[in-house]
Amino acid sequence: MKKADYAYIGKNFRRKGSVERVTGANIFAVDMSIPGMLRGGILRSQYAHARIRDIDVSEAVSLPGVYAVVTAKDAPDVRYGRTVTDRYILARNKVFFIGDPVAAVAANSLATVKKALRNIKVEYEPLFVVLDPEEAMKPEAPTLHEDVPPPPNLPEGIKAKNVCSYISLHVEHPDQAMAEADLVVEEIYKTQMVHPHYLEPRTVIAEYDNGGNLTLRTNSQTPFVVRSEVSRLLQLPVSNVRVLVAEVGGGFGGKAAGVASGAGFEPICGLLAMKAKRPVMMVLDKSEETIATSVRGPAKVWIQTGVQKNGTILARKAKLIFDTGGYSGAGELAGGWAARMLVGCYRIPNVHIDGYVVYTNKQVCGPVRGPGGVQAIFPVESHMDSIASRLDMDPVDFRLKNMLRRGDRIPNGVTLRDVSLKETLLTAAEKVGWGKIRLRKNQGIGFASTTWGGELGHGPGAGALVKVNEDGSATVLIGKVDYGSAVNMAIPMIVAEELGIDIDHVKITNVDTDTAPWDFGTVGSLTTVACGGAARLAAIDARNQLLRIAAKQLNVRVRDLAAKGGQIRVKGFADKVMPISIAATAAHFQVGEVIGRGTYDPETISRKEKEKGASPSYATHAALVQVDPDTGRVDVSKYVAVHDVGFAINPCAVEGQIEGGVVQGLGQALCEQILTDDTGRTLNPTFVDYLMPTANITPDIEPVILEGYLGTGPYGAKGIGEIPCVLPPAVIANAIFNATGVRIRTLPLTPENVLRAIREQKRKES
Amino acid sequence: MKKADYAYIGKNFRRKGSVERVTGANIFAVDMSIPGMLRGGILRSQYAHARIRDIDVSEAVSLPGVYAVVTAKDAPDVRYGRTVTDRYILARNKVFFIGDPVAAVAANSLATVKKALRNIKVEYEPLFVVLDPEEAMKPEAPTLHEDVPPPPNLPEGIKAKNVCSYISLHVEHPDQAMAEADLVVEEIYKTQMVHPHYLEPRTVIAEYDNGGNLTLRTNSQTPFVVRSEVSRLLQLPVSNVRVLVAEVGGGFGGKAAGVASGAGFEPICGLLAMKAKRPVMMVLDKSEETIATSVRGPAKVWIQTGVQKNGTILARKAKLIFDTGGYSGAGELAGGWAARMLVGCYRIPNVHIDGYVVYTNKQVCGPVRGPGGVQAIFPVESHMDSIASRLDMDPVDFRLKNMLRRGDRIPNGVTLRDVSLKETLLTAAEKVGWGKIRLRKNQGIGFASTTWGGELGHGPGAGALVKVNEDGSATVLIGKVDYGSAVNMAIPMIVAEELGIDIDHVKITNVDTDTAPWDFGTVGSLTTVACGGAARLAAIDARNQLLRIAAKQLNVRVRDLAAKGGQIRVKGFADKVMPISIAATAAHFQVGEVIGRGTYDPETISRKEKEKGASPSYATHAALVQVDPDTGRVDVSKYVAVHDVGFAINPCAVEGQIEGGVVQGLGQALCEQILTDDTGRTLNPTFVDYLMPTANITPDIEPVILEGYLGTGPYGAKGIGEIPCVLPPAVIANAIFNATGVRIRTLPLTPENVLRAIREQKRKES
Repeated sequence: MKKADYAYIGKNFRRKGSVERVTGANIFAVDMSIPGMLRGGILRSQYAHARIRDIDVSEAVSLPGVYAVVTAKDAPDVRYGRTVTDRYILARNKVFFIGDPVAAVAANSLATVKKALRNIKVEYEPLFVVLDPEEAMKPEAPTLHEDVPPPPNLPEGIKAKNVCSYISLHVEHPDQAMAEADLVVEEIYKTQMVHPHYLEPRTVIAEYDNGGNLTLRTNSQTPFVVRSEVSRLLQLPVSNVRVLVAEVGGGFGGKAAGVASGAGFEPICGLLAMKAKRPVMMVLDKSEETIATSVRGPAKVWIQTGVQKNGTILARKAKLIFDTGGYSGAGELAGGWAARMLVGCYRIPNVHIDGYVVYTNKQVCGPVRGPGGVQAIFPVESHMDSIASRLDMDPVDFRLKNMLRRGDRIPNGVTLRDVSLKETLLTAAEKVGWGKIRLRKNQGIGFASTTWGGELGHGPGAGALVKVNEDGSATVLIGKVDYGSAVNMAIPMIVAEELGIDIDHVKITNVDTDTAPWDFGTVGSLTTVACGGAARLAAIDARNQLLRIAAKQLNVRVRDLAAKGGQIRVKGFADKVMPISIAATAAHFQVGEVIGRGTYDPETISRKEKEKGASPSYATHAALVQVDPDTGRVDVSKYVAVHDVGFAINPCAVEGQIEGGVVQGLGQALCEQILTDDTGRTLNPTFVDYLMPTANITPDIEPVILEGYLGTGPYGAKGIGEIPCVLPPAVIANAIFNATGVRIRTLPLTPENVLRAIREQKRKES
Repeated sequence: MKKADYAYIGKNFRRKGSVERVTGANIFAVDMSIPGMLRGGILRSQYAHARIRDIDVSEAVSLPGVYAVVTAKDAPDVRYGRTVTDRYILARNKVFFIGDPVAAVAANSLATVKKALRNIKVEYEPLFVVLDPEEAMKPEAPTLHEDVPPPPNLPEGIKAKNVCSYISLHVEHPDQAMAEADLVVEEIYKTQMVHPHYLEPRTVIAEYDNGGNLTLRTNSQTPFVVRSEVSRLLQLPVSNVRVLVAEVGGGFGGKAAGVASGAGFEPICGLLAMKAKRPVMMVLDKSEETIATSVRGPAKVWIQTGVQKNGTILARKAKLIFDTGGYSGAGELAGGWAARMLVGCYRIPNVHIDGYVVYTNKQVCGPVRGPGGVQAIFPVESHMDSIASRLDMDPVDFRLKNMLRRGDRIPNGVTLRDVSLKETLLTAAEKVGWGKIRLRKNQGIGFASTTWGGELGHGPGAGALVKVNEDGSATVLIGKVDYGSAVNMAIPMIVAEELGIDIDHVKITNVDTDTAPWDFGTVGSLTTVACGGAARLAAIDARNQLLRIAAKQLNVRVRDLAAKGGQIRVKGFADKVMPISIAATAAHFQVGEVIGRGTYDPETISRKEKEKGASPSYATHAALVQVDPDTGRVDVSKYVAVHDVGFAINPCAVEGQIEGGVVQGLGQALCEQILTDDTGRTLNPTFVDYLMPTANITPDIEPVILEGYLGTGPYGAKGIGEIPCVLPPAVIANAIFNATGVRIRTLPLTPENVLRAIREQKRKES
């Protein structure tokens, strides 16, 4: 079917609730209230590393208005963690960073909660604090998690301490190839710790009923993971835990709670509700979010590449030291992905990469949008320009020469079916005016390209149910939360298209783990791909059920029928129609209801990819910047983001994802960073000191959508959620290099850092 | 499978939440609160029949704290009604009974609501009030609903006015048979108006969001019907209306809102919320419930039977005048059923029955538990004893002689497969001591038998979804509300049985129309039959999915596997097991989740019944009473209720249904009645004057469960919800007759009425 033939798909529809979102009319979790609801709060460690000798809650318990005080002793002796289970919901013996939860209180007012928290006496034995992962790996460093064994795959010879997980990638003969190279370029890059800083605070309301059911109203991105973790940590059957999610004001992985970034938030609130026998609401304030919840972990990358004179890359060696903070969190995931992404989107025949995910006494690494992406792509794509410069090659030409193409195999063994990298790069070069516009002094253009998803697999399965109502409208159940990505619009577009009904007659309901099909959560750029695909199949299933009912009634064959405009029509007979409402109502007197089911099945997709090849997402960004050599200020004048999205189901939502991702990436490039002092205390926990990208640094962004290289999503759509925020740091750094000849290898590119680098360069040159 | 082999089925399990229900710990709708919630109230007509000249809301609108005032003008010009659409949610031109809603107010407090209601000025033109349906049928009576045409099936010759619907049943040659009879007995019976008087008041909270979605939290028994009606009456797509039901404190058909008994309750609250742009809560108080919501309609029955000397019934003629009140409500349904039930559970070869459902200016008839049942069975079963007495036959023998048996055809054309009537009657006679105990003076025994369901069809379809969680627990979605009947326990029993998991690991979730499979509601004794059947099939479907996953992993055939005790076992190999949790978790990486679906399909059941015969519910009740001839007081010393339930899934819940139904039936037999003055005003709207059956009149009830004659429900279960409350009035009247020789043909059998009848009899005898 041609794009123009679709009624909804491929056209622009504004996300439902957008106006309410920006006018503040939405009801978020924090606006909710339940009769008899208490407020809860957490006592957090003021030490970055300490042993807990004793906790005395007696005074807090006896305060009027206090309903429950809980410590580790009140919780089951169960630890959590993605693969390395190293954490209790409330610290049991030791604390590992400033902000680590130690106790919690439920009381009749927030003031009483705070008073009670102040009255809990914790006796700590302070321990040596390690903030730098390289220091943490040294033999003389203290062992943070004494009871966590070293990674089983860590080679015998490596004596590094505090390694949480280890990743090694070895392809062919990197040492030999490196030795044969005409030029070997070696650099060290550093990315900083940033917070995902969604605007809506993390909130949960826990309610425990007489039947032993715990209901959690929360703004999580991963309600089913919350359910599963709460069930395990509080020792309740999964069927007794219900997680409800309504509006969510951004998440960016920071609200992908349960697995890694939970910091035990929902389980602690659940524990309080169970003990208090009253509903408890817990809201984190901004500084608490910053110090205590999950962050994008900082990383240090040593990268070395051997090339031939003609620009052909022969070998890559790299070492990644990834700081996961006080607990494993999502460090193993993000660090692992970062390590694998250090090959970039290039054909590199010989590779050796070592990745170390290391514990320190800092905030815990979470699955922040594009986990591992910035930590790998900032080094890789900066490094590409460095090599091109050393080879005296045009960076676009150097990339084109080495880029992955059709038929290439990526390290996970999958062959690529279509590769649009070249097209994204050429389009970006054309749009930004590379080689065409005359650059003024201190003006420069930078590029960065990447792929996303092909290397990372297809995530777990997902499902959708489409219920067709008696008036021909439909209600759709999926397990993914729309926290801003407009999946709540993509799904109705798909369902309306396939059922042949009005888009305003499709309702997508809020996620309730009791009723929605299981889903891993809104993560991994998979929302439209997985749930959109499942919803499409569910709608087709429902349509077929309706057609069968109509075929019986109209006495025709099912294949002679089509659903369009709310009607089931006999093809070729304009007057032979049956309203969908009639067919849907007829079902009431048979099976009750037309319910279509569709699933997203990663196992099947992987098998097909093995047979026919994979087609992941690709993108190239380009920016034109102006550097002020006297202040170090970098102005981004133009920003082009070219994305191969396979098929844009809702183009304006795709553009929104690109623009939002670019702004977030520019934040990491230009201004955002969490700063700590040498005791591990965060120096800038609020927006007063933590600089977020705002309108005054946001350039004119031109999102360019490439279609045609079809992906695994519905109608050939590919994921777009994460990739846009991964590229900007490298793009800007390359543009600064192009403008000034100064290579900056440490993020963020603040005026101070840029100015320092320019002065350093001048000093060297003079 | 033998009953003893089941793990859960057929054993006793206490309804979930029973303790909380009686200790007041449950959260009912009235306990809920939503931020910013207003209170709502309804202005009701003080005239039983009047034309509305004008409504002036200006003063009410201008009161501080008033957010919305609505009248018919604010609502779409759409009428409702089950088949006869004769009613607006707010009276548009005329009012038809005292309590008819005329306007409604939403304000910031209940006091303001009441003040605003007092300040609405309605100009009425009072019209002639008709309270007696026979008067209403006369030519000189005013026409109540000028715009409702007479029933299309009303014969030309019949000039009756105000007939809402007409039912006629004619079998063979009744006139001729009557003429040939040895004895013709003719009587007139009357049943009174009662209210279902559930203890929890009707409550709704309506919330209208910016996206055009209307959410209703209500304690309806029929959430999907509410959704459908609200959608139609407020002109919203069904997908934009969401109805949520949590705990419901009884309903007995009174909360089967939407169709008939709604009195526009939910739509009015929805309309207020839409206009006020704030959530609105509306709660009816007891007197408002009594005067304004639906009742069991009163009826008058002329019944004539021709019998042979040997006791064989030859013919039945009957005329029913059924009072539906101010609107059609469920009058057409209940009146129709009553008319058809006037043949009783007997073989009567020649029948003529005419039923008239008639408008009057009284409360509207609703689908109260066993609709039409008491109105028919009180006459029919009293009449049986009258005939037996005239024949000088034992009433048990007379019944046995004429009872339906295997192979008989009932008027809807279905042949009966198994008939347990005789067994129920003999068991009841045995248990109550008929012919064995020596009756003291003024002591008597009465009987009544009936069938239920066979004549009434199988209702609409229903569905169930069983979601299997990663720990092997399951969550079940059905569309029926448990308002006390313990379906919330029957379903987990069935699902645990079929899935082979622990019963405490099955959660049944509250009904949410956005997520539950469509369902007509908790009505018609169909809950366990329909949803239990669907849930059983859904659990089997889920089990098969789990077995397929396990078969692949264990490398065996599916048929070699069984699920039991949370494990999937290879039959014959004790050590070859896979926990259900492992199989359920494996699904996460394939289709997402094991979701089983099952449906209850009345079309298929009807087809099978046509082939193999039907097996409806049967029951006989018997009571031993003591009549005080000086006060008219009737003491029920013993009450035996024998029910063929096919298969008792949860015997203690079946007993609970029987006991509760008997008490409700005794209420109608002995004390309950709504009294009105000649203007149509209810004289006893509160529990101070309206006598409900309490412990001091409740006898020792012996529920007796007969099994073996399998019905259409899961495991052969038959419906039990309605039938127990239908028999007591006839049982008690027959026992009084047995004790005193006095036949009382008008309900209730209050001491005054009994005393009057005894004195009347004495007067006649003297």
